[in-house]
Amino acid sequence: MIRTHEAGSLRREHAGTQVVLAGWVARRRDHGGVVFIDLRDASGSAQVVFREEDHAHDLRSEYCVKVVGEVRVRPEGNENPDLPTGEIEVVASTVEVLSESAPLPFPIEGSTGVSEEARLKYRYLDIRRSQVAEAMRIRSKATYIANEVMNDHGFVYVETPTLTRSTPEGARDFLVPVRLQPGSWYALPQSPQLFKQLLMVSGLERYYQLARCFRDEDLRADRQPEFTQIDIEMSFADQDDVIALGEALIGRLWKDILGYELPSPLPRMTYAEAMARYGSDKPDVRFGCELVEMTDYFADTPFRVFQAPYVGAVVMPGGASQTRKELDGWQDWAKSRGARGLAYVLVQEDGELGGPVAKNLSEAERAGLAARVGASPGDAVFFAAGAKIASRDLLGAARLEIGRRCGLIDESQWAFLWIVDAPMFEPAINEKGEQVGWTVVHHPFTGPKPEWADNFQDHPEEALAYAYDMVCNGMEIGGGSIRIHRAEMQQRVFEVLGIEKEEAESKFGFLLEAFKYGPPPHGGIAYGWDRVCMLLTGGESIRDVIAFPKTASGFDPLTGAPTPITGDQRKEAGVDATPKPTGV
Amino acid sequence: MIRTHEAGSLRREHAGTQVVLAGWVARRRDHGGVVFIDLRDASGSAQVVFREEDHAHDLRSEYCVKVVGEVRVRPEGNENPDLPTGEIEVVASTVEVLSESAPLPFPIEGSTGVSEEARLKYRYLDIRRSQVAEAMRIRSKATYIANEVMNDHGFVYVETPTLTRSTPEGARDFLVPVRLQPGSWYALPQSPQLFKQLLMVSGLERYYQLARCFRDEDLRADRQPEFTQIDIEMSFADQDDVIALGEALIGRLWKDILGYELPSPLPRMTYAEAMARYGSDKPDVRFGCELVEMTDYFADTPFRVFQAPYVGAVVMPGGASQTRKELDGWQDWAKSRGARGLAYVLVQEDGELGGPVAKNLSEAERAGLAARVGASPGDAVFFAAGAKIASRDLLGAARLEIGRRCGLIDESQWAFLWIVDAPMFEPAINEKGEQVGWTVVHHPFTGPKPEWADNFQDHPEEALAYAYDMVCNGMEIGGGSIRIHRAEMQQRVFEVLGIEKEEAESKFGFLLEAFKYGPPPHGGIAYGWDRVCMLLTGGESIRDVIAFPKTASGFDPLTGAPTPITGDQRKEAGVDATPKPTGV
Repeated sequence: MIRTHEAGSLRREHAGTQVVLAGWVARRRDHGGVVFIDLRDASGSAQVVFREEDHAHDLRSEYCVKVVGEVRVRPEGNENPDLPTGEIEVVASTVEVLSESAPLPFPIEGSTGVSEEARLKYRYLDIRRSQVAEAMRIRSKATYIANEVMNDHGFVYVETPTLTRSTPEGARDFLVPVRLQPGSWYALPQSPQLFKQLLMVSGLERYYQLARCFRDEDLRADRQPEFTQIDIEMSFADQDDVIALGEALIGRLWKDILGYELPSPLPRMTYAEAMARYGSDKPDVRFGCELVEMTDYFADTPFRVFQAPYVGAVVMPGGASQTRKELDGWQDWAKSRGARGLAYVLVQEDGELGGPVAKNLSEAERAGLAARVGASPGDAVFFAAGAKIASRDLLGAARLEIGRRCGLIDESQWAFLWIVDAPMFEPAINEKGEQVGWTVVHHPFTGPKPEWADNFQDHPEEALAYAYDMVCNGMEIGGGSIRIHRAEMQQRVFEVLGIEKEEAESKFGFLLEAFKYGPPPHGGIAYGWDRVCMLLTGGESIRDVIAFPKTASGFDPLTGAPTPITGDQRKEAGVDATPKPTGV
Repeated sequence: MIRTHEAGSLRREHAGTQVVLAGWVARRRDHGGVVFIDLRDASGSAQVVFREEDHAHDLRSEYCVKVVGEVRVRPEGNENPDLPTGEIEVVASTVEVLSESAPLPFPIEGSTGVSEEARLKYRYLDIRRSQVAEAMRIRSKATYIANEVMNDHGFVYVETPTLTRSTPEGARDFLVPVRLQPGSWYALPQSPQLFKQLLMVSGLERYYQLARCFRDEDLRADRQPEFTQIDIEMSFADQDDVIALGEALIGRLWKDILGYELPSPLPRMTYAEAMARYGSDKPDVRFGCELVEMTDYFADTPFRVFQAPYVGAVVMPGGASQTRKELDGWQDWAKSRGARGLAYVLVQEDGELGGPVAKNLSEAERAGLAARVGASPGDAVFFAAGAKIASRDLLGAARLEIGRRCGLIDESQWAFLWIVDAPMFEPAINEKGEQVGWTVVHHPFTGPKPEWADNFQDHPEEALAYAYDMVCNGMEIGGGSIRIHRAEMQQRVFEVLGIEKEEAESKFGFLLEAFKYGPPPHGGIAYGWDRVCMLLTGGESIRDVIAFPKTASGFDPLTGAPTPITGDQRKEAGVDATPKPTGV
């Protein structure tokens, strides 16, 4: 190494030692002939003193330098207790500029006011900021811990293919033309799901992987076209085994990195309960404001809007004092989510109900309302009425918005839970809004709960899946299921879904073929690794824990990807070739 | 878990214990009313006894079963000392078929005579074979050890993008159309080279990754379109630091997995020496038969063929007794490599020289030849004459072929060494065979050795790169270099290569831009992970250590990838869209 010490490692006991340091000029202060420089490297920083200015006269911000000098204890009164190296300084005898720096597009120290576009374009400067570098280091540490936990539990790390088969339904598959077989294309996997199930058929019993996954979809706020998951599958396991493993993994991460001890076991909540109480399958249980079902309450209501299959309410504490504009804002908010609006009443200080809805209710309804929904004087009560799923969804979103606006969420809290017993199927809806059959909530290999094993096909609207999601602070961070391993059961699922034998063959043929050869019972889980790391680092976006992320449109401001390609590249890659009909 | 014990874990001390096992029917033997089954799971296997045949009557090969029974010590004389569970058996009380198996395309036990195509098509059955599963487990263990070594050395695991920028010269890039930006394409990286150098500019100082790489090239014998490398880069490091790290990594792997202690430090050989002695930059030093340069010896030769800029020889021990057909075979072998033939003399038992070349040599040349090349009576001597590079290459290949044919290679031996001081540049040759400038041996960011820092541009034919390759048993398993971090030096390299400023901008613009901001001195290395694991497992091909490999043509017999795509997929993916000229 061209240095003898790391700058951040120097302490009082190094006083008198000759050291060679190498790093970056972080800060420079000139004091009449004496120049002080904070020399930063990956370990931290140390103060370097140049007694003669000529040594230091050309050192500017972010120059990369090598300094030879002697460590000494700082003169009394000059210590910096905030810095691990604050007791010492290095008196430079020589300095060598290893490389210069052009003026920076933004300062490394102090992060305010830099656009994300600039940060991503100059990501290599952005990562020089301590908080960004720290996020990278924590992610690395988390990866190491995850490997340790999985190894301790006897899991085999297996790398599955990135260049694989495009499936006809894979409208969100990224496609890759193959030069050696012009006209034929690989697809990038949305997850290693099929491969991990094949590995169970292969008898490896316990598989895991830090797997890169790809999805060519409209990028919502915090999505990336490529993302990483910790992908896990195990044989001869039941739901409780996978859940215990998931808790061991997440438990170790939170303990080793944040010093936080997860409750063990974590609470479990059924999907039905989560939807009823929180209007969400990933409830944020750090605060109350639970949904109150009011369908029965309004069974005989004169108010047309509430004559609906479902009526529910959620209370906004102190919401009665909102301005007209704020209350109108809620209507716009609801409309932006595709609802017609958000009915509300305001519980006035005298207990009377205000707001436009109140006068449409019967006297009895008005009288008992506040008590029934748990509202106090000064609160607002929001309502949704209509189809149960859509109404709960709206109320669940309103609840979260209330939590944010009213500051009800304790950001220091960790609220983990499992959501279990999700439905196997949900109605498939056509463009006219009519049900045209059933579709799966997870994927078609998800098994039914044991009690539904024989008759899920007779009650697709009620049948429960043997599936589980881990939720943390209102985010789904992992999810999985016990899979189907019996051909006849798989066939019944396909029948409910209306998938013909031929279609099943073309979509999943090689998995179904594998399942003919003694597949073991198996199940697994996958954790969204970017999201887990975001939580561990306190980041606000998964982009904070990805070294070179893309923007919401899939653009990389650093490299300029994606780009047009030349005609030669197009020809070379075989993009426009007609495949030979006989395949290989 | 649906079992209480792993079959392979049962021992004498479990006698009397009620156990539940789950696994596969590996072998079945019927003995008059008593049925013995070897029950296999990931841990090994155990013998299960069914005292009444009706329990077992429908158990066939590779059925997945659950067995409840009691462990007992085997009757005396029935022990199997070759099996860890050979002292016990499990007397079954009940058995449940978890899933049946269709007749197998090939037997799981005994691997002879199964085509590779069948093995890959039914890879999930192939992996049930103990040696294949063991290779997967060793690879997993190796990955874990690598993570441990890198973590111990303070390296940060960083995941770099898989969807990145296509470069104009990237004729071997896989391309990926982007649905959200129709007409624009990502490329899959051939290595994370640019990103790892950017991470050094970012000040992380020590980066590593288990990186998936992609190359859309003609697949030679043992290549895959996607492969994995352990990718490493470090700042403020010199060649010796990277080499020491490489030895620590490989040393731990060989020690922990094979119990083999690497010599420390490993020997180093210059590229020039390797070419002169072995005709290869990745010499297999497990046997002798080194090349002998004969240019001087034949300086005044009357033999036209040897009037060449380079003449070299290699001895084949015992080769004089080869048949005419075998000797002709060498000519075909040489021609298949693009040579005109392979001149030879045979040293007869009386010391006289035989073969067609001998009579063309002068008497003095004949007299001293055997002594000069180190041949004994009964040996053959092969010659190559012509351009130095091509001739040495031919002799180096002949040497390896001799080693194989004569059984000179000790397959139990590990011969590691570093090849250092490779040339920076090599002549760029056009289609007519004329030199039209210079091209790089490694990549254009490879630095010169310190002594060539100032004047490599004046002697491109001599300048040495600060590069190092780790070679094991004649295979390059890792390679890297100290990179250029100074803009003016990079500029001089581009000038030697004849790369114009504009071209450099378009090819590497974002890296050159990054290098304006105080880049540190840095260097790194990458190990071909598939190849390392192949050596660790004793495999013959990297396909043996890849869970789901592709054939030489890039075809996956299991999934059928790659496939044609539908018109809808093509349209959806934006394959034929014209990109907006303004980009993003």
